[in-house]
Amino acid sequence: MPKKAFESEFEFVRWLRRMVPDRQGRLKLGIGDDAAVIAVGRGHELILTTDLSIEGVHFSRRLDPPRSVGHRALARSLSDVAAMGGTPRFALVSLAISRQTPRRWVEEFYAGLLGLAKRFGVTLIGGDTAVVGGPTGVDVIVAGETPAGRALLRSGARPGDYIFVSGRLGLSALGLHLLKQRRHAGRKIPPPPTRPAGFGDDAVLAHLYPQPRCALGAFLARRRLASAMIDVSDGLSTDLANLCAASGVGALLREEEIPGPFRDQGVIPQGDARNLALHGGEDYELLFTVPPQKARHVPRQHLGVRLHCIGAIQRSEGVLLMRADGTKQALQPEGWDHFRNRRD
Amino acid sequence: MPKKAFESEFEFVRWLRRMVPDRQGRLKLGIGDDAAVIAVGRGHELILTTDLSIEGVHFSRRLDPPRSVGHRALARSLSDVAAMGGTPRFALVSLAISRQTPRRWVEEFYAGLLGLAKRFGVTLIGGDTAVVGGPTGVDVIVAGETPAGRALLRSGARPGDYIFVSGRLGLSALGLHLLKQRRHAGRKIPPPPTRPAGFGDDAVLAHLYPQPRCALGAFLARRRLASAMIDVSDGLSTDLANLCAASGVGALLREEEIPGPFRDQGVIPQGDARNLALHGGEDYELLFTVPPQKARHVPRQHLGVRLHCIGAIQRSEGVLLMRADGTKQALQPEGWDHFRNRRD
Repeated sequence: MPKKAFESEFEFVRWLRRMVPDRQGRLKLGIGDDAAVIAVGRGHELILTTDLSIEGVHFSRRLDPPRSVGHRALARSLSDVAAMGGTPRFALVSLAISRQTPRRWVEEFYAGLLGLAKRFGVTLIGGDTAVVGGPTGVDVIVAGETPAGRALLRSGARPGDYIFVSGRLGLSALGLHLLKQRRHAGRKIPPPPTRPAGFGDDAVLAHLYPQPRCALGAFLARRRLASAMIDVSDGLSTDLANLCAASGVGALLREEEIPGPFRDQGVIPQGDARNLALHGGEDYELLFTVPPQKARHVPRQHLGVRLHCIGAIQRSEGVLLMRADGTKQALQPEGWDHFRNRRD
Repeated sequence: MPKKAFESEFEFVRWLRRMVPDRQGRLKLGIGDDAAVIAVGRGHELILTTDLSIEGVHFSRRLDPPRSVGHRALARSLSDVAAMGGTPRFALVSLAISRQTPRRWVEEFYAGLLGLAKRFGVTLIGGDTAVVGGPTGVDVIVAGETPAGRALLRSGARPGDYIFVSGRLGLSALGLHLLKQRRHAGRKIPPPPTRPAGFGDDAVLAHLYPQPRCALGAFLARRRLASAMIDVSDGLSTDLANLCAASGVGALLREEEIPGPFRDQGVIPQGDARNLALHGGEDYELLFTVPPQKARHVPRQHLGVRLHCIGAIQRSEGVLLMRADGTKQALQPEGWDHFRNRRD
């Protein structure tokens, strides 16, 4: 086994950030958040983000229908824009197609991607293509916007802020689990939902066709409710650790408040459901902090998506998990790390 | 051999364009040119472009030093911005690193990329990373800008316009040829040039460290000299055919005016040099058309880069090549096609 280039994504990003400026001139925010922010014109800021989806890492040709691969490839970048409180506008798609790929796969991939784009008012404006000997890979770039000064960073959380999360966590990981178990083998894979965010009680649908929370993110930015925000793409434990590290704070989570994949509780043991909620990735829900004086302005739901208060920011570093009986334990980031994980 | 997804890049782009709008609202230009153009703020337009560089397709680990891979990955996108007459400002890099990659390779890759970025005043503001089982691949996104309404499209060429090209053509392909012939085997691979565009008489340097013509592109846009522009990334025959197709015109090229890799004439037979100049890719020179009444305002050189008038736009479709003896023949696009070619 050859030596890895970097031990973790955290180490890689830290290394890269040392070589490039973080903020200068019109650059409001550089490497290390969900997306970059650039001042353009008067009153508006441009948000730019890009996400890789690679066969064998982020999707598998055996498990994932191409329509879902296209949907999720775009959803990842839309969710990054949502996590800045921005509104996505344009997308570029760079597609490296494996030489073995039939035309039908490419057509279905774009059908999934363009279907989601249409629903979010996003226009495909460019990209690049290559035919490759290795696995298929795609890089989706999304350009969005926020009113100037309203972008929600990871670094704004302060001790005493409440921690909120949207929707349910672990649902996507449960869906993947079910897909892998082939419980759905032989059953027709469901088409993408046509209703907006909030739909998708089925864990499999939540995994195949996640709904980025763009409307919620823009709402929180517009109302100036949140102090910091990140999307739950790598799992709650990992994404909360990233938000805390960027803000130089710690957190206390109340386990019984974390909205797990409850309705599917019977499918898997309770302990597994808890682990999925804590560490399962790809939910694309929003995790945000709210100063105490603003907490009462956070609605219980937004456009059908429930918002849950799951804990509070603390001065001391690290994330603590408090169980229903009052005992506390350190919560290690055990979600997705791009330098450690792979799909198959 | 499985059926290819698409027969050619042209067919793929045509298929994709049918599904998405070309221009609407703030979108000034979508899929099919060197880059996309979006209206932002007052007086300025945003240029967005993205380019894949994949091991085994665009570079080979055996031939190409990582510093050159990083330099060229960014140069491709900078050249797209140059071809719109824009000025590049920001870059995002999505890197899928092969699991076999040593850290030193990644460091050298970024040294090449960031060295070029610094010279062009471009700031790295984000990206994504993944560790993959297949070959290494990178997608470089560049955001640039032009004054509103000044972006130079491929579609503006009109019959009677003169055709100009910058620098020398086929030099990069000759450099690759030399690298492959291992004429440079055992010789230390030269470091990237530190002087700006114009430097690089050596074909190997021109291949490893091409100099995007951003200053020239911005000059032509600012002075409103060009009617259409494209960069010579896939070879003169292919890129001119693309410009002509976008403009709905044809062209007549005067073979003896095409600036080939002359100073290295002795290295390869004359016929080969001509073929490299006509079909060799990766020169990243600018190919542009100029209305007759403006032709006298085109300087003979710009910041040390020679500009050559190599022919004229015609009403009839297709590209004709006129030899020194006055005979004409059709010039087929025999440059790079992303659906047909590979590097190794």
